[in-house]
Amino acid sequence: MEEIKDLDVIEELLETKQYTRLRQKLSDINIADIAIILEELEEEELLKTFRILPKSMAADVFSYLEVENQQYIITSLSDREAANIINNLMADDATDFLEEMPANIVKKLLSHASADTRRDINHLLRYPESSAGSIMTVEYVDLKENMTVEDAIQRIRQIGVDSETINICYVLDPKRTLVGTVALRYLLISPPDAVIADIMHENVIYLNTLMDQEEVARQFQKYDFTSMPVADNEGRLVGIITVDDVVDILQEEATEDIEKMAAIVPSDRPYMKTGIFETSKKRIPWLLLLMISATFTGSIITSFENALSAVPMLTVFIPMLMSTSGNAGGQVSATIIRGLSSNEIGYRDIFKIIWKELRVAIICGVTLAAAYFVKLMLFDKSGIDVAVVICLTIISAVSIAKVVGCTLPIFAKRVGIDPAVMASPFISTVLDALTLMIYFSIATQVLHLS
Amino acid sequence: MEEIKDLDVIEELLETKQYTRLRQKLSDINIADIAIILEELEEEELLKTFRILPKSMAADVFSYLEVENQQYIITSLSDREAANIINNLMADDATDFLEEMPANIVKKLLSHASADTRRDINHLLRYPESSAGSIMTVEYVDLKENMTVEDAIQRIRQIGVDSETINICYVLDPKRTLVGTVALRYLLISPPDAVIADIMHENVIYLNTLMDQEEVARQFQKYDFTSMPVADNEGRLVGIITVDDVVDILQEEATEDIEKMAAIVPSDRPYMKTGIFETSKKRIPWLLLLMISATFTGSIITSFENALSAVPMLTVFIPMLMSTSGNAGGQVSATIIRGLSSNEIGYRDIFKIIWKELRVAIICGVTLAAAYFVKLMLFDKSGIDVAVVICLTIISAVSIAKVVGCTLPIFAKRVGIDPAVMASPFISTVLDALTLMIYFSIATQVLHLS
Repeated sequence: MEEIKDLDVIEELLETKQYTRLRQKLSDINIADIAIILEELEEEELLKTFRILPKSMAADVFSYLEVENQQYIITSLSDREAANIINNLMADDATDFLEEMPANIVKKLLSHASADTRRDINHLLRYPESSAGSIMTVEYVDLKENMTVEDAIQRIRQIGVDSETINICYVLDPKRTLVGTVALRYLLISPPDAVIADIMHENVIYLNTLMDQEEVARQFQKYDFTSMPVADNEGRLVGIITVDDVVDILQEEATEDIEKMAAIVPSDRPYMKTGIFETSKKRIPWLLLLMISATFTGSIITSFENALSAVPMLTVFIPMLMSTSGNAGGQVSATIIRGLSSNEIGYRDIFKIIWKELRVAIICGVTLAAAYFVKLMLFDKSGIDVAVVICLTIISAVSIAKVVGCTLPIFAKRVGIDPAVMASPFISTVLDALTLMIYFSIATQVLHLS
Repeated sequence: MEEIKDLDVIEELLETKQYTRLRQKLSDINIADIAIILEELEEEELLKTFRILPKSMAADVFSYLEVENQQYIITSLSDREAANIINNLMADDATDFLEEMPANIVKKLLSHASADTRRDINHLLRYPESSAGSIMTVEYVDLKENMTVEDAIQRIRQIGVDSETINICYVLDPKRTLVGTVALRYLLISPPDAVIADIMHENVIYLNTLMDQEEVARQFQKYDFTSMPVADNEGRLVGIITVDDVVDILQEEATEDIEKMAAIVPSDRPYMKTGIFETSKKRIPWLLLLMISATFTGSIITSFENALSAVPMLTVFIPMLMSTSGNAGGQVSATIIRGLSSNEIGYRDIFKIIWKELRVAIICGVTLAAAYFVKLMLFDKSGIDVAVVICLTIISAVSIAKVVGCTLPIFAKRVGIDPAVMASPFISTVLDALTLMIYFSIATQVLHLS
């Protein structure tokens, strides 16, 4: 709400060309909020306001903007202005931004950026997407073991004090191997002549540059650190990752899981920014595949045409049975997929899980069958033989559903397929066919059809 | 892997009763890893090892353990030992733990805890579950405006330097209203006689004690802070929240969404720790409700018995049509639910979304229909009239599915129902019925049935 009020004020100041007051107003607003306000402005007003921003804020605000607006701004600025923004961005933000830009713009921007910036960015651009290397920042404070606290504070002043990444300082040996960490708070309360080697914390836990971002997030969750160092295969410090990046990773991964579980090809772009063709392209492959698979379910019905024409009322229960087994299977698979992705569950647990799900299936199946039996007897006045067929099918279908629902995601992970694909839409299609086969074989047996 | 090696060593040291070496070994291992190792031990060994832990580590290790093990340890320790653990826990960890304990144990533990601890914990226990107040910690550094940097450093030494929560210090006026913040790094590089009021950062953004944890997480994502202050309705500082708690909230909320979307009553407990009756209890309500709803779908089939016996092959396509519309609807609803929960989408967007989904539906529907038409003509050699019925049904059903799939979650949120409930299982059940009605009316028209 606050932002809307600010937006009105800013639009008025822009219209009435009161640029000095505008600049003043902007410096009172938090950077993230300014970005939100800028997103609401027309392109020209956006550019005008961005240029008015105090220099010290411009790069930070820039890093919060949507890619489309970043691209618009950077191409509208002069080369020097643009290079200035790039130089002032944190290296990891600059890399994120450059990864989204066309190659010719990247080249032009980098050619104007300072040598330091260029080196940092090139360094990050070399790591595979979603690896620890690609999300780390190379801006951190490195100390030497033989420095005193006073030397260390001198070094911090020199490197710059604006970044949140200096709450932990990293102690390196001459080969740049990480030998310890010192929290800023210990520097603060230690005597100026204390030696770093004596106050540093050894046994540092670090990440590898090639570690996948999902694993990075898991390490942060495990250790509750606010930042972790990233080292290369030789143990040399190359960057650090801060917990605010981890928050973004977790959201991204959860969204990706949910999309895959809903039979959508996952996408990086937010829904409202994706065009209708791109949206359709993400949805059609699975719809098509599942549609073709569901055709087999139809042909199972055909092959039992005789049973159905002998007892036509059997058709009525088909949707209920398919839906129940699909839902029962979907419940387990969602639970297992989530457990696998948070590493709570592993392949080693498979027998424990099947045994648990079998017992849960009996409880669920019998409860549902009993409820449906009452409904059949009271409202449908169906024959006891049909009721027996339906109840036996419910119990068997729920049992199969629970077992399939827990084994498929675990096996998928085992053979390197993303388990999230084994969620409800896929599982339901498999279970529809299985349920019908169970249904018709029980019906054939109990009702003596042939 | 590291942990398994450590586990072997520790088990051997325990067996051979080399307690001094065990204690030494433990102090080399990271706290989170010790917790993982302890979880693997038998209860008695667990207790023995826990008691051997250096005092300074015991409370921290304790906070990483599973609730069951915490309860076991705390009831096995003497009252004094137990009170010692509670006193050394961070207040928010202690509160989390006490919330899980039976009331009589809580009472006993609190009676032995120090007055300070008791006050902090009672304070936190008073806030509603999942509110900012209940997850905040009350351990932070508060400064006064007229303090010098030297006074401030003195105050930090006095409050204690072990906590990560002191990277930002909070400046309060005499009424304890939050007037500014000072980053620890500025204290470090400022002259000792500088006055806090001059170096502090004003315009502090704070959370309210009653704010829901989901909103808390959203604020952290928006501002990228590593900690945020929490104030009561009068603007008085009462605690702070650190970003590592936010990581846990985000995981919890995502799991809860996924569970609700799979028609499970969400649960706080990890899957492997939940008994089969509890698991069943979380699953049966929705299964039952959806089973009963699916019965209506069955009765739609009955009411079109005549059409089906006139053209028996119409039955074959029922599973494919129901599954396709269910999947199409599930795709949209999952996307919309995720968008709503990350606040990307709101009620205001409803017409834009419907318009987008209608166009996506036409693209998806026509593509699927075309593919199925080819299949019908080439493989099934069905009549052109049946093919027309199927293709028209696919297009209409996908369109209805996309519109229902996007409107239901948005309306649900509008009237205060959790949108996650409007995911695939529920949507599919609604769509099954709608699809069959569309199918049979198109069939009746095109094939001139009555």
